[in-house]
Amino acid sequence: MKVEKLSDLFQHTLQDIYYAEKLIVKSLPKMAKAADSSELAKAFTGHLEESKEHVARLEEVFASLELKPKASKCPAMDGILEEADSLMEEIKDPDTRDAAMIAAAQAVEHYEITRYGTLISWADLLGHKKASQILGKTLKEEYGADSKLTKIAESHLNSEAVA
Amino acid sequence: MKVEKLSDLFQHTLQDIYYAEKLIVKSLPKMAKAADSSELAKAFTGHLEESKEHVARLEEVFASLELKPKASKCPAMDGILEEADSLMEEIKDPDTRDAAMIAAAQAVEHYEITRYGTLISWADLLGHKKASQILGKTLKEEYGADSKLTKIAESHLNSEAVA
Repeated sequence: MKVEKLSDLFQHTLQDIYYAEKLIVKSLPKMAKAADSSELAKAFTGHLEESKEHVARLEEVFASLELKPKASKCPAMDGILEEADSLMEEIKDPDTRDAAMIAAAQAVEHYEITRYGTLISWADLLGHKKASQILGKTLKEEYGADSKLTKIAESHLNSEAVA
Repeated sequence: MKVEKLSDLFQHTLQDIYYAEKLIVKSLPKMAKAADSSELAKAFTGHLEESKEHVARLEEVFASLELKPKASKCPAMDGILEEADSLMEEIKDPDTRDAAMIAAAQAVEHYEITRYGTLISWADLLGHKKASQILGKTLKEEYGADSKLTKIAESHLNSEAVA
């Protein structure tokens, strides 16, 4: 699509995060399976359910703007998840592998936090009240997922990785 | 390099953010030149000086661990900046272009925030006190850069983009 004005940029960024969320839904089961810590596996499984809901919410946002949901390739998310994939395969030590997966998942969360934050401010400016409300719910959950990962890392995982 | 334990992962992630910071130093002058708002151009120029300092600090961190500074390709940062580049070229409307550049710069900041946060927690675990201290200074500045961009976006830029 051609980006000329803020409404185009909003639509383009929606397509970018829609692609990213769908990729996350694909990646999380693999990450949950590879996690050694049961707490981490549970966090990934829980976030998988949330991410499926985020995909559905984005479809609601598209519908509220009378647009068809469309995913547009997001090289940043591709990059974060490819890196995570290769570290997951390479690292044999389970605690170090968990530490790498937490770091990757937090990079994913931060990417989502920045994109949803931007989308919400643009939705407000463009007067898309319903879209702003829906995106706000998701942003809150992304912050929650990031905090949960920090807690898991701090509580025991990382210290096991240096043991 | 082969990643086997947490100290390898730490080194690998240092190389990743070293690559990212060097790429940012290369990209910011272009972004400052393309910015229509003088406030935004000033923010990019200011962050360029900070980022040069961040590169130097990373070299200090490598030295404190008796490692040679090495950059390792970071596909996430490549992705964010390629996207920014193509939007910068495509968007003719100056206010919409500024909005796109702010969004890209905030994605950059969030990537750095998550990576520095992870590096600091690993440095602490590994007992790298000096490294942790140096990285902490940079993390604070990345948060500052992100807040400044939010303020610029909220104060006038985005509303000009819908005008």
